[in-house]
Amino acid sequence: MTRADGRADDELRQIKITRHWLDHVPGSVLVEFGRTKVLCAASASTGVPRWRAGSGLGWVTAEYAMLPAATNTRNDRESVKGRIGGRTHEISRLIGRSLRGIIDEKALGENTIQIDCDVLQADGGTRTAAITGAYVALADAVAALGVPNALTGSVAAVSVGIIDSLPRLDLPYEEDVRAETDMNIVMTGAGAFVEVQGTAERAAFSRTELDALLALGEKGCADLTRIQMDALRS
Amino acid sequence: MTRADGRADDELRQIKITRHWLDHVPGSVLVEFGRTKVLCAASASTGVPRWRAGSGLGWVTAEYAMLPAATNTRNDRESVKGRIGGRTHEISRLIGRSLRGIIDEKALGENTIQIDCDVLQADGGTRTAAITGAYVALADAVAALGVPNALTGSVAAVSVGIIDSLPRLDLPYEEDVRAETDMNIVMTGAGAFVEVQGTAERAAFSRTELDALLALGEKGCADLTRIQMDALRS
Amino acid sequence: MTRADGRADDELRQIKITRHWLDHVPGSVLVEFGRTKVLCAASASTGVPRWRAGSGLGWVTAEYAMLPAATNTRNDRESVKGRIGGRTHEISRLIGRSLRGIIDEKALGENTIQIDCDVLQADGGTRTAAITGAYVALADAVAALGVPNALTGSVAAVSVGIIDSLPRLDLPYEEDVRAETDMNIVMTGAGAFVEVQGTAERAAFSRTELDALLALGEKGCADLTRIQMDALRS
Amino acid sequence: MTRADGRADDELRQIKITRHWLDHVPGSVLVEFGRTKVLCAASASTGVPRWRAGSGLGWVTAEYAMLPAATNTRNDRESVKGRIGGRTHEISRLIGRSLRGIIDEKALGENTIQIDCDVLQADGGTRTAAITGAYVALADAVAALGVPNALTGSVAAVSVGIIDSLPRLDLPYEEDVRAETDMNIVMTGAGAFVEVQGTAERAAFSRTELDALLALGEKGCADLTRIQMDALRS
Amino acid sequence: MTRADGRADDELRQIKITRHWLDHVPGSVLVEFGRTKVLCAASASTGVPRWRAGSGLGWVTAEYAMLPAATNTRNDRESVKGRIGGRTHEISRLIGRSLRGIIDEKALGENTIQIDCDVLQADGGTRTAAITGAYVALADAVAALGVPNALTGSVAAVSVGIIDSLPRLDLPYEEDVRAETDMNIVMTGAGAFVEVQGTAERAAFSRTELDALLALGEKGCADLTRIQMDALRS
Amino acid sequence: MTRADGRADDELRQIKITRHWLDHVPGSVLVEFGRTKVLCAASASTGVPRWRAGSGLGWVTAEYAMLPAATNTRNDRESVKGRIGGRTHEISRLIGRSLRGIIDEKALGENTIQIDCDVLQADGGTRTAAITGAYVALADAVAALGVPNALTGSVAAVSVGIIDSLPRLDLPYEEDVRAETDMNIVMTGAGAFVEVQGTAERAAFSRTELDALLALGEKGCADLTRIQMDALRS
Repeated sequence: MTRADGRADDELRQIKITRHWLDHVPGSVLVEFGRTKVLCAASASTGVPRWRAGSGLGWVTAEYAMLPAATNTRNDRESVKGRIGGRTHEISRLIGRSLRGIIDEKALGENTIQIDCDVLQADGGTRTAAITGAYVALADAVAALGVPNALTGSVAAVSVGIIDSLPRLDLPYEEDVRAETDMNIVMTGAGAFVEVQGTAERAAFSRTELDALLALGEKGCADLTRIQMDALRS
Repeated sequence: MTRADGRADDELRQIKITRHWLDHVPGSVLVEFGRTKVLCAASASTGVPRWRAGSGLGWVTAEYAMLPAATNTRNDRESVKGRIGGRTHEISRLIGRSLRGIIDEKALGENTIQIDCDVLQADGGTRTAAITGAYVALADAVAALGVPNALTGSVAAVSVGIIDSLPRLDLPYEEDVRAETDMNIVMTGAGAFVEVQGTAERAAFSRTELDALLALGEKGCADLTRIQMDALRS
Repeated sequence: MTRADGRADDELRQIKITRHWLDHVPGSVLVEFGRTKVLCAASASTGVPRWRAGSGLGWVTAEYAMLPAATNTRNDRESVKGRIGGRTHEISRLIGRSLRGIIDEKALGENTIQIDCDVLQADGGTRTAAITGAYVALADAVAALGVPNALTGSVAAVSVGIIDSLPRLDLPYEEDVRAETDMNIVMTGAGAFVEVQGTAERAAFSRTELDALLALGEKGCADLTRIQMDALRS
Repeated sequence: MTRADGRADDELRQIKITRHWLDHVPGSVLVEFGRTKVLCAASASTGVPRWRAGSGLGWVTAEYAMLPAATNTRNDRESVKGRIGGRTHEISRLIGRSLRGIIDEKALGENTIQIDCDVLQADGGTRTAAITGAYVALADAVAALGVPNALTGSVAAVSVGIIDSLPRLDLPYEEDVRAETDMNIVMTGAGAFVEVQGTAERAAFSRTELDALLALGEKGCADLTRIQMDALRS
Repeated sequence: MTRADGRADDELRQIKITRHWLDHVPGSVLVEFGRTKVLCAASASTGVPRWRAGSGLGWVTAEYAMLPAATNTRNDRESVKGRIGGRTHEISRLIGRSLRGIIDEKALGENTIQIDCDVLQADGGTRTAAITGAYVALADAVAALGVPNALTGSVAAVSVGIIDSLPRLDLPYEEDVRAETDMNIVMTGAGAFVEVQGTAERAAFSRTELDALLALGEKGCADLTRIQMDALRS
Repeated sequence: MTRADGRADDELRQIKITRHWLDHVPGSVLVEFGRTKVLCAASASTGVPRWRAGSGLGWVTAEYAMLPAATNTRNDRESVKGRIGGRTHEISRLIGRSLRGIIDEKALGENTIQIDCDVLQADGGTRTAAITGAYVALADAVAALGVPNALTGSVAAVSVGIIDSLPRLDLPYEEDVRAETDMNIVMTGAGAFVEVQGTAERAAFSRTELDALLALGEKGCADLTRIQMDALRS
């Protein structure tokens, strides 16, 4: 009962973080979780949205999107449909909240950092890859801005799920669609939770199953934190 | 260090479920969690969306919205803005998923039940009140349709959070804005989890805190299940 | 040849006006014309729209909408469709004009009162119920604002129509669809006309029929004015 | 106390109806009420909207719009704004209803006639000019379709109002903005009412004033009917 | 092998330019290229868009649109569709660029001239007719503004194409749809190119064919320049 | 008077074509013109749009877009703005026309190939890079579909312009903004023109200048054709 790609149940896919992928922005990362590829860009601008002006506090926000050819079957552009779908909104908000969780807005000063996470290819876990990569782009951006202490820590994210009654880490698309329960876990490098989102896809789950998923997520986020730190040192 | 409304930390607000509030739909409930009032209506129609036609399976979907005068400060209509916001999308999807978790789509047959949850007045916990009330409206609707066994169980939801370092159940608006961590828990009447969504609003939370919140949520959902059953018997 | 609900041709349905239905706004009314239920809320804010700023004059405006489950067959949300329909626009404008007809904008000062009329259940006459209820919510709001003299009078509205060649007052849905001619009449408490809208639904109407309808409308508005005054005194 | 353009109070502006202004459609009219110029086109197509298919009945519908340079101050295009305003919707619906009032949908058969009324220049009374011209375009279209008996009569429209306490017929823009009360009257050639819309712009109006306005409207519509008949004979 | 309307291959259709067609704007022209009729209006306003404010420079911009009944088969309104199509955008931008090519923005001062080109009837060449007519409306507008030297020259446009292997000038719709290659040429009165847009509709074209089309376009624009000058003198 | 990057006036930037960049689509190319990077994906599906069904002919269409961080200053997402801009529409249409110019729709059969060109980084010439890369992705897609003879030839595109009075090939952003005249030229591998679009950005251009630009474009397209062929052979 092994996984299609031969991984152990608590093992991440191959993770690649390529920094400085773009020339025009202070932070940019191509992050790969197996075949999932997300381009994360951190743009900086002076000033903050009107509702925050004069507060002395900075602002970090995020937008997530998918290229049409990223998925198995081509997905229509939201710009062409003229409206952003619920899933896109939901993930954009999740990424923004996760990053703001490790930002000291006072240290950032009245600057805005806009994170764009564009999925170039999707194979499950695009939102968790986006958060993991966006943190690295954000770290490069605050360093470039000269305010590295605007970061109070690091953040990483991973998906976990129960497939064929077994808890598994970092689901590719093929496992994701078969999962009975699906959970996204966002944690700081210090091991605290930023966001926990679990959904019973097929059957409600017990407290015991929930505890097993949380343990797997803690393990996966710790692994990702090490990979992020390696990337930032290189 | 008691709560503003005198409740114990693990105590629900006053919950009222008024069935048959509307005349044109098979199920309708005005649910009140303290001052939060949500009108939940379950409309039934034969047939299912095109992508599901011919499958023999039914469909349950939900939409959530807020009246402009529901909030402290008037919120503009999404119909006037011409687009639905991210928060609305997110909650509509949550309600739909939660209800589908206790539906036997085969037993429902090729019928669609559309749940509308309209917040008439908001004082925190509108999405959890909506799920809790919507279940009762749904139960009335499937009974009216003559397919009561389309329900495989019941579902209820409650918010929990850490305020001033204390875990508390069923947050009104005033506590919600002060919460360090905020969690929405959706459970079946049988005590299994359907959805767990926890967010660090101010500081990341530890596994110990997470466990305390989960326990509170289990207690609150059990209380709500009893209230739902009482309402359905009356 | 009596009416389905046993009323005389010149008799209103049972009218109920429940004030202070909401907690967050200075004026709110649940108005019922038989089974038609409209929630009317009057929100106040300091300042006026930009085009009026500096004039010393206040502004009253209104929005009308219907909940999806209000009607016999569920009607799709305009927020989901992404645009407001012609009928909604038309009625919103009618309500706003009718209320502005009894407002002294100078006495109101540079304040805005936003009226929201949301139809919770529809059984004919939603726009006339909305105007009739909105006036009471508006009266409560200007009193709460401390400018009761911003009202120069009262306003009420009723529908009339010719069904089976007979002029009738206050049409429920079942009569409305059968009406040969349909008319909405908005009048001040002092007996003057604010708005007269008559439409030949099936056959053009003669001046004699028009006169009969106007007389019925005058009678109905006078009755509604008395009910409004009673509600405001209680 | 005469009118700026020297007309008597019950006199129409100079009315011009130019038929066959366009080459691609079966009916087209440039109608002028003084400086108000509206291009009315009647396009015909076989078949009816889906909700009416198979009924054996035809369908007539109308759209009204204004060119940006039609008004004193340029008005932005609704296509650019991305939404149609309330006023446009309201007038489009009025024109459609007025024309359907004199159509025998059975005689029309399952054909659709789409009326487009585009205001090339506005100087008050654009909606009444549109209805008056559209009737002539419609008459040409049904004749071209070979179903002249699809018309059960004719229809014309005119504005009336009280300016400086005097009832006046066919208001140009300059009178329209000063009117205390404003009324649009749509009548059949046989002298019956199709639509009556009166609005108190500044002060509520008495039954006596209403009667005077109705009489003026009856006179104006009779004059317009004669002009329409002359145009159709030429 | 002559043309359907008997013209020589290098001959324009009958061109008519009627100035002062509208009363509210400083420049307005009804331009006709055969059966193609475009109403061009030039509105003036003080001030410029925000991004240009304080520069001392003026701004000229254009919008192009088609009435629904302008075409053989009725085309739906873009205001009703809620979005402007690609073709409309493209032509609006072309007209604006072409006119700005002969404007001295400094001499115009901080004023905006908005050009509206509305196609009343289409029979091929609507964009080239629009540019040709818009120039005349613009010339009248800058004269009315008292800054005639804001024009550095004149501009005219014409379509050319290869039909049945023959290069032809000024294509009506019937030729346009059969063209193997289609080109729009915009030139100044002094004989320089402002815009050249050639498209292989059926087969790629050789440099020799391109040269023949350019020569025809030069001839046609020179003819149109003479007609524009005649119109402005009259 | 050399170019900033040391190139000769008739020399292309470094061109890189990386095939098979994505896993889910039959054709995908990352094309680089210097720092301009465009991801071109060709998705295939059976069937054609409704208006073409039953014709036996295939369909090729294209969409162009820019990632927000692609440009010097972040550009807002069109999905967020809710509408596609004129420039995007125009370029999408250009790419589609250019590719259809070398497609034998009969040989393609009733299949649709959708080309998506997403600019990951922009430094001038994004539309010409998109066409050049899209051809290679299209060639891979038709080969994968088993209909290589659906291609009647190849297509490539390049920008040319006059900067400081000198005609130059393949403009980067820095030259593009300074160009007096700007031209995009699309040609087949056989040396025929598919599309010629020239615009006077600052001053109208003479026939002599136009001829010089056309010659440069012919040279550049020939070079690109060689690079495309090399890429397809590798």
